[in-house]
Amino acid sequence: MIDLRSDTLTRPTESMRAAMAGADVGDDVYGEDPTVARLEERVAELLGHEAALFMPTGSMSNVLAVRSVVQPGQEVLCDSSAHIARAELGAHGAYSGVTMRTWTHPRGHVDLDAVRGLFAPDMGPFFVRTAAISVENTHNFAGGTVLPLQLLRDLKELATGLGAAVHLDGARLWNAHVATGTPLAEYGATADVLSVCLSKGLGAPVGSLLVGSADTVAEARIWRKRMGGGMRQVGILAAAGLHALDHHVERLADDHAHARLLAEACGVDPATVETNIVVVQRPDAAAFVERATAAGVRVATVGPTTVRMVTHLDVTRADAERAAAVLSELS
Amino acid sequence: MIDLRSDTLTRPTESMRAAMAGADVGDDVYGEDPTVARLEERVAELLGHEAALFMPTGSMSNVLAVRSVVQPGQEVLCDSSAHIARAELGAHGAYSGVTMRTWTHPRGHVDLDAVRGLFAPDMGPFFVRTAAISVENTHNFAGGTVLPLQLLRDLKELATGLGAAVHLDGARLWNAHVATGTPLAEYGATADVLSVCLSKGLGAPVGSLLVGSADTVAEARIWRKRMGGGMRQVGILAAAGLHALDHHVERLADDHAHARLLAEACGVDPATVETNIVVVQRPDAAAFVERATAAGVRVATVGPTTVRMVTHLDVTRADAERAAAVLSELS
Amino acid sequence: MIDLRSDTLTRPTESMRAAMAGADVGDDVYGEDPTVARLEERVAELLGHEAALFMPTGSMSNVLAVRSVVQPGQEVLCDSSAHIARAELGAHGAYSGVTMRTWTHPRGHVDLDAVRGLFAPDMGPFFVRTAAISVENTHNFAGGTVLPLQLLRDLKELATGLGAAVHLDGARLWNAHVATGTPLAEYGATADVLSVCLSKGLGAPVGSLLVGSADTVAEARIWRKRMGGGMRQVGILAAAGLHALDHHVERLADDHAHARLLAEACGVDPATVETNIVVVQRPDAAAFVERATAAGVRVATVGPTTVRMVTHLDVTRADAERAAAVLSELS
Amino acid sequence: MIDLRSDTLTRPTESMRAAMAGADVGDDVYGEDPTVARLEERVAELLGHEAALFMPTGSMSNVLAVRSVVQPGQEVLCDSSAHIARAELGAHGAYSGVTMRTWTHPRGHVDLDAVRGLFAPDMGPFFVRTAAISVENTHNFAGGTVLPLQLLRDLKELATGLGAAVHLDGARLWNAHVATGTPLAEYGATADVLSVCLSKGLGAPVGSLLVGSADTVAEARIWRKRMGGGMRQVGILAAAGLHALDHHVERLADDHAHARLLAEACGVDPATVETNIVVVQRPDAAAFVERATAAGVRVATVGPTTVRMVTHLDVTRADAERAAAVLSELS
Repeated sequence: MIDLRSDTLTRPTESMRAAMAGADVGDDVYGEDPTVARLEERVAELLGHEAALFMPTGSMSNVLAVRSVVQPGQEVLCDSSAHIARAELGAHGAYSGVTMRTWTHPRGHVDLDAVRGLFAPDMGPFFVRTAAISVENTHNFAGGTVLPLQLLRDLKELATGLGAAVHLDGARLWNAHVATGTPLAEYGATADVLSVCLSKGLGAPVGSLLVGSADTVAEARIWRKRMGGGMRQVGILAAAGLHALDHHVERLADDHAHARLLAEACGVDPATVETNIVVVQRPDAAAFVERATAAGVRVATVGPTTVRMVTHLDVTRADAERAAAVLSELS
Repeated sequence: MIDLRSDTLTRPTESMRAAMAGADVGDDVYGEDPTVARLEERVAELLGHEAALFMPTGSMSNVLAVRSVVQPGQEVLCDSSAHIARAELGAHGAYSGVTMRTWTHPRGHVDLDAVRGLFAPDMGPFFVRTAAISVENTHNFAGGTVLPLQLLRDLKELATGLGAAVHLDGARLWNAHVATGTPLAEYGATADVLSVCLSKGLGAPVGSLLVGSADTVAEARIWRKRMGGGMRQVGILAAAGLHALDHHVERLADDHAHARLLAEACGVDPATVETNIVVVQRPDAAAFVERATAAGVRVATVGPTTVRMVTHLDVTRADAERAAAVLSELS
Repeated sequence: MIDLRSDTLTRPTESMRAAMAGADVGDDVYGEDPTVARLEERVAELLGHEAALFMPTGSMSNVLAVRSVVQPGQEVLCDSSAHIARAELGAHGAYSGVTMRTWTHPRGHVDLDAVRGLFAPDMGPFFVRTAAISVENTHNFAGGTVLPLQLLRDLKELATGLGAAVHLDGARLWNAHVATGTPLAEYGATADVLSVCLSKGLGAPVGSLLVGSADTVAEARIWRKRMGGGMRQVGILAAAGLHALDHHVERLADDHAHARLLAEACGVDPATVETNIVVVQRPDAAAFVERATAAGVRVATVGPTTVRMVTHLDVTRADAERAAAVLSELS
Repeated sequence: MIDLRSDTLTRPTESMRAAMAGADVGDDVYGEDPTVARLEERVAELLGHEAALFMPTGSMSNVLAVRSVVQPGQEVLCDSSAHIARAELGAHGAYSGVTMRTWTHPRGHVDLDAVRGLFAPDMGPFFVRTAAISVENTHNFAGGTVLPLQLLRDLKELATGLGAAVHLDGARLWNAHVATGTPLAEYGATADVLSVCLSKGLGAPVGSLLVGSADTVAEARIWRKRMGGGMRQVGILAAAGLHALDHHVERLADDHAHARLLAEACGVDPATVETNIVVVQRPDAAAFVERATAAGVRVATVGPTTVRMVTHLDVTRADAERAAAVLSELS
């Protein structure tokens, strides 16, 4: 069975397992895990920020990152299909008391005119205040689209002028980096606080990092404990992350090539597939998924007429070719 | 000075003051205020629902109404300039743990296609669930626009089919009723829970009502106490509301006529003014407000190039004509 | 029927009604209600603080007062039968994200040793931080007990030394003031933020005030709006409060005398009745209440074997004597 | 250096690392990790409940366990030094909107009289409702004390009669089990929902489990995702837990013996040391800690005159003897 439902499905490789098994660890709640410290420093440096903090999930990382720039009773603006809006089960409202207003962009890009139209300054006891704008790069539900660097720079300038922060959900920022060659730090410079994941394209079993200023991270450390994310000998997991940074970043180009193969097989223009996610329209998505599964290829519905397939570390070239053959038969 | 900043500015009339002074009262936390009970029964009946509950403000009424149909961690969909999204300071997130996604409609109408596109069913531990759609009628920040009854009926049908509730923010539903002749109960039938205000066009000093099923209201009574809205001898305020229902509903037609006068004076097509709110574009809204104020007419900015003026109980025909004369000079 | 269930039951007098009917009002959300402003200034001055803010209820006033000194995720310490712990339906947790730990004192006094034992300093990501200690004076559920001024001063000194704030729930502070002759400002000096009520012993129909620094009140104004407590022409209610301050403070001594009458009739040592609340133990409280009611005296159970009776503005000397006669028959 | 600060400091053994490295894993958000499933089944069975759910930390496990039986605006009663009250940074208030009242017991036992005194039934819009009582066994801050089984049974009976649930924080329930020989399922039978930790005495690097009915666990699965605790290939961590259950439960008896050694060395009656925690009073706790550290034994202050030392997997018999020698010199 070739499993294309998500890149969260990757299993750690043998060498990643060995790295975990040999990790030097300590109690990270006490700030004493050397492997976690190394990972945090490395990721902060890659993104060009002062500090980073290991998190059990991208959801917690996003929730605490947004909370670091949006107080209870303030709002964050984002695309209506952003992961923070759709896939974190309302945590920003439920746990941070943060409210949202949204724009809708077919490719998940930030819509600067929408931001200007929605933006609400501090008006005391009258209107909600927009404290941050959030973007997602690559954008999961829009199909792995890459947000153009210039657009992100324009947003940062706009937001700074308005007195708002920018949050970047970079769960798959590695894919954007590899697809465009843009250095991670250039993306990092367009956000005040960001989140990156180790457990999607990079293939680590667990883990994300909140990235920002030293003050933001110090404060987030307290909120992470409050939220139940203060784990102990996390070096086990951080070792997988360090291994992934060494070995699994550049190879994302393969996932992107595999995704284009699948697109072509499904009659989608490969030029529209920017990274490792392919979105395909089918009259009956559920039936299509069933037939694909029967033929040995698991894909997922993300809507009644929409099928999503995601390439990743556990999908080899041969797998991709076989899946393409299967899918082209079904199309 | 003629004050057109808001219809919340109305001062109680002499006869309304007399009604308050003579009100029969009791401790409403114990459910023993007969005037409150009369008002609640009357409003429930007007809207065609089982029960109603007096609230200190429209904001609390909206917050508890939405909370009655949306649990923490679930979402409500609404227009991005809805009062619940803009003017309640993020209370739905901060106090109810409710999250929002929004569409943007120039007239504040519900966008059924947007609802279909945004709607998210219950998907267990994966996606936020859309529990309700909220509409506002008339729509304040869109300029007192009336939502067409058929549109509201279509929304109710759509929502029911999707398993979601409809919340109606009817702060100015009285204006919609008078402008269109639609019975209040017909509007009431399009929502599961609603809120109406006594303190805007109706001219009462304080008070709103949450309207819904007997169960919803019983539960909201507890949450109202928790939220600090359980007041004691509220009959004083309820008496003003009853007086307003007797004397200040039909006269809203005057406010609407006055608003059209103002619109014409400002070069706005009076046909576009549906109720008591006129929105005017001026290159420098703040400067316009300043000049109008200097000439004896207070209006408000609701954006850098947007001026809002609202007619109400304290604006007589003569006031409206004088304001129109002043404003046409400025235009 | 003589109703001794609570002093919240008082109905406004004729002259209070006249004061309300003639009140000069404005839109208080815009800060334009002159009667509210007068009341807020007067109460702030009485308590020796910079500013005060009108609130719809004592519950909201307490919630926002505590929130002004305790952030989400921090704790307040208080007596386990404090109004904030028992009678605000968990609002401090539900709405402010504030947690509590409690001591238990038979007279509702602050237990300084318990405070020392419970107090938790800021320890970063390890322990909850005690941000405030809350006291209630007079203490409702302990039976209207007065907290000794020296004890409150000792608490303030202790708290200041520990870096914690003191919140005073002064719903019935007027009773403590009249019972002891202690100037209100001396009580005020023992707290950073406090709440006083107009709707209990003072006999106003609705209203409380949060009292504190100008900054605290400015911030609380925003949170009051968010919480749905930003009412409009509140001068109607504030006028009742001003009237009560002029006419209903000193007369609380009568309520206290009446309470001692009732105590004596029930076999309770009148010396233990410090203000207007009498707590009586009966083997079957519910049966006692039933018999008293049948005899024309309404009292309340506050536990299976505990009966509470409260004197107030609507209980005359003659009423108190008649009630005493009835109750002594039942005892 | 012998580190006695906490049993959270344990590092995974070589064989535990091997178990992790070889774990069969899947995406646990999709419910597809076989090792997690095995661990959850095994723990549920051990505790005699229907189901269990892996959690990143004991804090999240406690927060979601309490939340499963206490709704926002309701209260839980507990000892004032309970982990849920002191060491979870107010998460129950901040994240679940749950409020607390507390009793204080020198050994951290449940005080049934206090429970009876504090308990508040559902009284509609008047008083907070006690929805659960929480106990901790063994009790961390009371010094690893074991709560007597009969006391827990009496509490369960009392709570059931009152209509309240019982939550058991069993972070160190394994220690109670080994110290007393009481089967885990007998403890399990005294609670509606409980939490157990793998990362303390059991020596796993990360992980806890929420244990309860199938419905509770299904609901908690959604809340875990919302709270950012939905991790992916968690089998890596679960394998450590399974290994610990196989190899590290019975050996807790050694930790207990070592703790008694340390107690004796510090002049504490070993009979008062029930499990693996020793609490010692010293006039200047910080100075004592400094001197101990200088002599190669790290211990921790938990108050100005209170020192805590904890034995665990990484403290051998030889370590314990050496530490005892060092500490007896210092005493």
